[in-house]
Amino acid sequence: MYQYNYLFDFTKNVFLKMGCSEHDSTIIADVFLVAELRGHSSHGMIRIKDYYELWKSRRINTDPQVTIVHESPSTAVVDGDNAVGMVAARRSMEIAIEKAKNAGTGWVATRNSNHFGIAGYYSMMALEHDMVGICLTNANPLVAPTFSISRMMGTNPIAVAIPAMKHPPFVADFATTPVARGKLAVAEKKGKKVPFGFVQDKNGEPSDDPTILKSGGSMLTLGGDRVHGSHKGYCLSAIVDIFSAVFSGANFGPFVPPSVAYLPVLDKKVGEGTGHFFGAMRIDAFQPANEFKSKMDEWIETFRSAKPAKGQERVLIPGDPEREAEVRNMRDGIKLLPAIKDDLVEIAKELGIEFI
Amino acid sequence: MYQYNYLFDFTKNVFLKMGCSEHDSTIIADVFLVAELRGHSSHGMIRIKDYYELWKSRRINTDPQVTIVHESPSTAVVDGDNAVGMVAARRSMEIAIEKAKNAGTGWVATRNSNHFGIAGYYSMMALEHDMVGICLTNANPLVAPTFSISRMMGTNPIAVAIPAMKHPPFVADFATTPVARGKLAVAEKKGKKVPFGFVQDKNGEPSDDPTILKSGGSMLTLGGDRVHGSHKGYCLSAIVDIFSAVFSGANFGPFVPPSVAYLPVLDKKVGEGTGHFFGAMRIDAFQPANEFKSKMDEWIETFRSAKPAKGQERVLIPGDPEREAEVRNMRDGIKLLPAIKDDLVEIAKELGIEFI
Repeated sequence: MYQYNYLFDFTKNVFLKMGCSEHDSTIIADVFLVAELRGHSSHGMIRIKDYYELWKSRRINTDPQVTIVHESPSTAVVDGDNAVGMVAARRSMEIAIEKAKNAGTGWVATRNSNHFGIAGYYSMMALEHDMVGICLTNANPLVAPTFSISRMMGTNPIAVAIPAMKHPPFVADFATTPVARGKLAVAEKKGKKVPFGFVQDKNGEPSDDPTILKSGGSMLTLGGDRVHGSHKGYCLSAIVDIFSAVFSGANFGPFVPPSVAYLPVLDKKVGEGTGHFFGAMRIDAFQPANEFKSKMDEWIETFRSAKPAKGQERVLIPGDPEREAEVRNMRDGIKLLPAIKDDLVEIAKELGIEFI
Repeated sequence: MYQYNYLFDFTKNVFLKMGCSEHDSTIIADVFLVAELRGHSSHGMIRIKDYYELWKSRRINTDPQVTIVHESPSTAVVDGDNAVGMVAARRSMEIAIEKAKNAGTGWVATRNSNHFGIAGYYSMMALEHDMVGICLTNANPLVAPTFSISRMMGTNPIAVAIPAMKHPPFVADFATTPVARGKLAVAEKKGKKVPFGFVQDKNGEPSDDPTILKSGGSMLTLGGDRVHGSHKGYCLSAIVDIFSAVFSGANFGPFVPPSVAYLPVLDKKVGEGTGHFFGAMRIDAFQPANEFKSKMDEWIETFRSAKPAKGQERVLIPGDPEREAEVRNMRDGIKLLPAIKDDLVEIAKELGIEFI
């Protein structure tokens, strides 16, 4: 088990060594560690190696100028200057929040960025300002549209954070696929099958093989198959892609650059880097803030009092599991798999620092 | 088969007879007929009886004052004055579009409204202004959150319309459940079972019985079960509910009023009427409009060229099936089931008009 502070300081040092500023390294470490604390370890320390390898391949800019390239009272387009995704994303969400202060809402589309960790992090930045936060991002293509066998979309997540008064906020943060990519990797490592409805083979036939992506297979959209509404998952994933890339001028769909260095740079570009989309909405642009938050309390209490199905203990509010994990992991420490520790030890050695 | 014009004029006359203005009756008929043309007959002529019965029970206001009750540069809250939903919704989307002209984006939350037909109609209003349109609404509760047996949410749809240049627009309009409520009714009328994953029984056990809602069952969220991501469908449906009702001050979740007169008025109110949420985003608040639309063309061409799975002819762009139905139904006419025709004949007789 590792303590939060140890992993935070180490992560910050890794990015400092890679040339990131004090300010940027702090942000990056914060996003990595929030992912670990909230139980999304698939977006935590395991990913440091990916960023490190991209940096070694000179495919990511650790000294970026993140700039606004276009704006209106409630909108902006941000160029991330090929920054580590967290740096471009955090600045973009700050701009969305600033816009919202004046215009009631703020909407920022960001291009020329990279993988930014967990989407929920940026949506939650709005909460302390009594705003609702929204974050979308596209990602490298693994997912086939309904009726197709071509990998055209990423797991394109949606995050929405909504403040309440006495209850913790509503925080939804989910991929627009039945499962995250990381779950397939876990099943593969354990030598297990996955349930049907997650992936298909290269011909579009149902499959329970978590390694199928390596032989031309693809992930399915939320809904799984057409009968169960996979076209709705396709719509969602497509909307996330268009908001993230067409609004910003980033690469869309199959042209989103890989977030790992072991995959080659794509031949064709239709924009700049990876795209994100951020929204901030002042709650008092709609209702007096206290009334809004009291109503959210009532909403939360109503849904928490829903009757559990047989064998279930309770009905959850989006954000409950992550918040509970946060308390647990801050108290008990964060567990890293031996393979991840080995990677970090190796990276530390190359950078002249230490990880034990 | 009925011609578009005949059904349009009849529908308009029904609402004129119910006391709606010329302006409002035209809007209402337009929304009903667009639903029929686009193949969403579950939201078309079959529903006229519901509105008529609500009016007879004095549960809907045919002479409303739809007003803005709160606003900021990019937002407004609208009170629908218990109008026929289409009237409150169309006015609200007009306000969103006006806001967007000045602020780049416009966001309107509407309370004290009623069932408004198809969400896609309002999102598509943005297209002619070179804007992206968004529409959400909550609806009377039929759907259980993950792990629950309580009906807490409606089929809460999401509609997003995005303009392109030479290609028709991208128009997604979908319930946040695997199927629409109407599909269960069709299966019931045909005496057929439905696939597992649509509904559960009163204990939360899987069911293939389309009549199960009558015996304490509930519909499931998109994803179907927890393994296949039903919690993501729950998040989506909850977000739609909160945006529609907490932003506006409408009833949320289990307190959304019934859209049919044969269900009683609920005892408890937590707001005013049904709630909707509308968004309009000027594309040139992000990119020069022509560049945005050309990029959408490229997006559409890319996804249209995705390789179809074995046995599939083509990969669809959201909006394709509806647009093709629109051409077909305008040319060949609109088919009404005998039972619907009988209802309309009866309503016509009571109102002193004619339907043949």
